[in-house]
Amino acid sequence: MADQDMSNNNNDNLVVSENPEHPANLIPSLCAKFWTLGWVTGTGGGCSIKEDDLVYIAPSGVQKELMKPSDIYVLKLSSQTDLRNRSYLRSPPCLKPSQCTPLFLAAFTKRGASCCIHTHSHWAVLVTLILETRGPGFDKAFEINNIEQIKGFGRGLDKKGNLGYHDMLRIPVIENTAHEEDLTEFLEEAMEKYPDAYAVLVRRHGVYVWGETVHKAKTQCESLDYLFQLAVEMKQLGIPWLSDIEPTVPVRKSQQ
Amino acid sequence: MADQDMSNNNNDNLVVSENPEHPANLIPSLCAKFWTLGWVTGTGGGCSIKEDDLVYIAPSGVQKELMKPSDIYVLKLSSQTDLRNRSYLRSPPCLKPSQCTPLFLAAFTKRGASCCIHTHSHWAVLVTLILETRGPGFDKAFEINNIEQIKGFGRGLDKKGNLGYHDMLRIPVIENTAHEEDLTEFLEEAMEKYPDAYAVLVRRHGVYVWGETVHKAKTQCESLDYLFQLAVEMKQLGIPWLSDIEPTVPVRKSQQ
Amino acid sequence: MADQDMSNNNNDNLVVSENPEHPANLIPSLCAKFWTLGWVTGTGGGCSIKEDDLVYIAPSGVQKELMKPSDIYVLKLSSQTDLRNRSYLRSPPCLKPSQCTPLFLAAFTKRGASCCIHTHSHWAVLVTLILETRGPGFDKAFEINNIEQIKGFGRGLDKKGNLGYHDMLRIPVIENTAHEEDLTEFLEEAMEKYPDAYAVLVRRHGVYVWGETVHKAKTQCESLDYLFQLAVEMKQLGIPWLSDIEPTVPVRKSQQ
Amino acid sequence: MADQDMSNNNNDNLVVSENPEHPANLIPSLCAKFWTLGWVTGTGGGCSIKEDDLVYIAPSGVQKELMKPSDIYVLKLSSQTDLRNRSYLRSPPCLKPSQCTPLFLAAFTKRGASCCIHTHSHWAVLVTLILETRGPGFDKAFEINNIEQIKGFGRGLDKKGNLGYHDMLRIPVIENTAHEEDLTEFLEEAMEKYPDAYAVLVRRHGVYVWGETVHKAKTQCESLDYLFQLAVEMKQLGIPWLSDIEPTVPVRKSQQ
Repeated sequence: MADQDMSNNNNDNLVVSENPEHPANLIPSLCAKFWTLGWVTGTGGGCSIKEDDLVYIAPSGVQKELMKPSDIYVLKLSSQTDLRNRSYLRSPPCLKPSQCTPLFLAAFTKRGASCCIHTHSHWAVLVTLILETRGPGFDKAFEINNIEQIKGFGRGLDKKGNLGYHDMLRIPVIENTAHEEDLTEFLEEAMEKYPDAYAVLVRRHGVYVWGETVHKAKTQCESLDYLFQLAVEMKQLGIPWLSDIEPTVPVRKSQQ
Repeated sequence: MADQDMSNNNNDNLVVSENPEHPANLIPSLCAKFWTLGWVTGTGGGCSIKEDDLVYIAPSGVQKELMKPSDIYVLKLSSQTDLRNRSYLRSPPCLKPSQCTPLFLAAFTKRGASCCIHTHSHWAVLVTLILETRGPGFDKAFEINNIEQIKGFGRGLDKKGNLGYHDMLRIPVIENTAHEEDLTEFLEEAMEKYPDAYAVLVRRHGVYVWGETVHKAKTQCESLDYLFQLAVEMKQLGIPWLSDIEPTVPVRKSQQ
Repeated sequence: MADQDMSNNNNDNLVVSENPEHPANLIPSLCAKFWTLGWVTGTGGGCSIKEDDLVYIAPSGVQKELMKPSDIYVLKLSSQTDLRNRSYLRSPPCLKPSQCTPLFLAAFTKRGASCCIHTHSHWAVLVTLILETRGPGFDKAFEINNIEQIKGFGRGLDKKGNLGYHDMLRIPVIENTAHEEDLTEFLEEAMEKYPDAYAVLVRRHGVYVWGETVHKAKTQCESLDYLFQLAVEMKQLGIPWLSDIEPTVPVRKSQQ
Repeated sequence: MADQDMSNNNNDNLVVSENPEHPANLIPSLCAKFWTLGWVTGTGGGCSIKEDDLVYIAPSGVQKELMKPSDIYVLKLSSQTDLRNRSYLRSPPCLKPSQCTPLFLAAFTKRGASCCIHTHSHWAVLVTLILETRGPGFDKAFEINNIEQIKGFGRGLDKKGNLGYHDMLRIPVIENTAHEEDLTEFLEEAMEKYPDAYAVLVRRHGVYVWGETVHKAKTQCESLDYLFQLAVEMKQLGIPWLSDIEPTVPVRKSQQ
C-alpha cells in the first residue's frame, strides 16, 4: 500500500484493484483517451462511474492524461443523497471534488445511468454558438437527422433498441451559469423536457453525455462528438442539419 | 486456452494464432489504427478479411480500439453461400454479427477481394453531402482527377497496374437505407455499373473499400480518405475536383 | 555516468535524476507532448522551469520530441541576474542556448513564475493575423469572454482564485522582432501594462505562457490554445469573440 | 541473421545495425513518424539518406508506418552515377525501388544534401492548387514572409546561417508528370533557377525537401508543412501571404 501513497484511514481500498475494468482504473484510462481527443484540455471536463451504490468521480483541476486511481473520489449513493450536499467515502488528499458532481449524480439518479462524461470539446461549443445565432427561441436544441451515426444512440430510458437512420436526434441546450453546480437544476429541467435524450449541451461550455453502461456512455459521447464536428463542417459548407429524405425501400429479389 | 476466455466447442482455435498476420490478430490491430484515424468512431464501421474459404469479421457494437481476437466471427464461404442467410463456424458469446456482413461478402464473391473495410469517416460523409447539393442525377458518383494520390488505386478487376495521374477516379454513391443489410443489393448494383471501382460511397453514412489483399484494401482506403479530405478542402476554397490539365511531356536531353 | 554521455566537469549532476518530476526530466517529456500538439514543430518554441534559484532551459535547435535530460541548460538566478548577459552553471556540449532565455527569465523575475512555455502554435499565429486585419490601434490584445474554458486562468499575480465565466480574458499582443532576444523589452512592457495576464502573444510568431507552477503553466497553455482554436473557428463562422450575455441567476428551490 | 529474413548474398549487412541513427534504422522510424503526420498516406511519399557514398532508400509501395530495415535499398553513389540508370548494392526481395530515386539523387548530387524527404501532405497539395488559381505565370512559386517559422530554413547552399523574419521564403513549384521519374529534369531546372531553395513543390502531388543533415531535412520539412498549413488557413481567412511589415527596431535602454 505504501508505494501507492495512500493512507489507510481514508478507504483507499476502494480505489485499489488489479482489474482494469474497476472504475478507479477505468476513469484514469478513459480520461487519458479523452485528453488525446481534445475533450478535456487544460483540466476541463470530467468523468464519473456508478457501480452498485458507489460513485467514483475524477477530481477537479487534475491534468486528465496524468490521472491516477489514487486521485479518485468515492461517494455512496442512497435514496437520501442530496445532489448538492453530500459526503465522500474517500477523498484524495490535496485535491478538490469536481464541480460536475451534482450533474453526474443527476444522470445517475434521474436517468439510471452508470457513467457520465463531461467534455469541453470545441465541436460541442461551436454547435451551441451556431445555434445562438438563430436567436432566442430557436437555440434550445441541436437537431440532426439522416446521418448513419445517429444509430449510435439508444431510443431512450426504458425503450428498446437504438435510433434509426430516419429518426431525429435531439439534444437540448441549456445556458451556462457562473458556477458549474448551478447548472444542475437546468440540467434536470432539460432531462424532464427531453426524457429520451442521453446528453445535454451547455452553451459556450461543452456537453454532458451519459449511458446505461460505461460502454454506452463512451460510445454515445464519441458518436455525438462526431455529429457535432460534422454539423460544424456542414454549416461551413452551407448544408442544413435537417433533411426530408424519404426512406429508400429496397425491392428484394424474392418479392419481385 | 483458459486465459483467453474461450470455450472449446466453438471452433475457438480458428482465432488463436501467434502470427500477427493471422486475420484474427490483424483485424483488431487494423481496427485500433482506424479508430485513431476517426474512421470507426463510436463502434461505427468495420473490417473483414477472407483467407482461402474462411471469412473473419469484426463484430457489431464493439469499441474498435479495444477489439480482441476472441471477438472475431468466422464464416465459411462456399459457392452456395447466401449473402443474407449464412451460418457461422465461430460466434463469440455475447456479441452480435456485423450488419455489414452481406456487404463484405459481396466484395469477396463479386470482386474477388480478400479484405473489405467500412468506415464512417466524416470526409466520406461530407463528400456525399456536397454531391447531394448538385441535385438528382448529378450526385451518383465522386469524380476527381489530376491528383498524384489517385495512383494509389488499381485499374480494376482483372486489369494490370494502377491508375495514372491523368486518369479519373470514379467512386459510385448509393443512397443509405434504414437497415444496413438492405444496402447489399444497391452495393451489388453499383459494382455492376462501375466494374473497375474498388469502393462505394454510401450517402450520409460512409464508404466501403476493398482490395485483392489486406495491404491493398488498407492503402486504397487511406488514399481514398486522403482524396475525400482534399476534395472537401478544395470545395471550401472554390477549386473544382475535375481539371483539364494536359499531360506534360518531358523533353529528354538525349532526345534533343 | 558514462552512458549518459556527460563529462563531470560541467555540473552534469544537475540534470541527472530518477525523479520524473525533476525539471531535467520534465522538460523533455513536456516538449515531446507539445510536439504531438503541433506547438514546437521544426525545433520552434521552447520551455523553461525554475526550481529555487536554478533555471532549467531547453536548448535551441533540438528536435523537441527527441530531447534528452543531457540537452538541458542550467542557469543560477540571483538578484544580480542580467536577463541578457548571463552565465550557465551547465551547458550541454555542441548545443546553443535558447534565444528565448531572456523572455523566460522575465516571466520568472517579473511575475514570480516557475515555468514558462513558448509555442509556435498556428492557432496563436492565426489569432494575431486576424487581429492585424482590424488595423493599428485595435490589434494589440486578444479579448474573449463567456466561454467556460476561460475559468482555466488565474485572476493574476497576488490575486486569489480563477477568472469566472463572465470575466474577459485579455492577452496582450506584441510585434515580432528580427531577433527573438529583442522581444524582451516589449514583453516586459506588456507585462507592466497587463499585470494580470499569464501570457503574451507575439505577432506572426506564437505565444509565451507562464504559471506559478509547472502544472499551471501547462494547463493555462492548453486552455489558451483551445481558446485560440475556438476563436479562429468562430471567426470563420462569423461569430464575434465578445458577447454581452447577462449572468443567468439560478432560482434555488429553497429560495422560492 | 536468419531471424531477420535476409539472404547473405545481397549485402544484407548494409542494413543491419544496432545503432538507431544508422540510415537503415532511421528511415523506418522517420517514415512511421511521417505516417502519423499524414505525409505518407497510402504508401505515398518517401525518404532517402546518404552516408558517405552510400544512399539508403525506402522502397516503393510499402506501408510507411510498418517499414523494416530489411526493406531498404542501398545504392553506391559515384561521380559516374547516372540518375536514371543505376545499380543497387542491395535490393530487398519482392519489393520495387522507389520512383523517387532519381529525385533523391538530384538533391544529393546537385545540392550536397544528406537526406531528402518526399511527402504527399495535403497542405502542400492545397498550396499548389491555390497558386494555380492565380493563372499561368503567377503560379510557379510559393512565397511567404514575416512568419517566425521561416527562420527554420537555411539561407542556401554555401551560405551561412538561417533566413530571418523579414526575409521571404520562396519555394518553386513544378508541374506534375505522368511518371514520377520524369519530374527529375524539372526538379533540376528548378534547383538551378532557385539555387537557395531547400524544397520544390510538385503541383497536385506534394513536396520534396532536403537538407545538409537528416536533422535539417526533417526539421525543414516540418517547418514547411507548418507554413503550408498556415498559408491555406490564411487564404480561408482572406489574409495575404506577403506583407510589407517594417522591421521593429528595439531601443535598448543602454542606448537611450
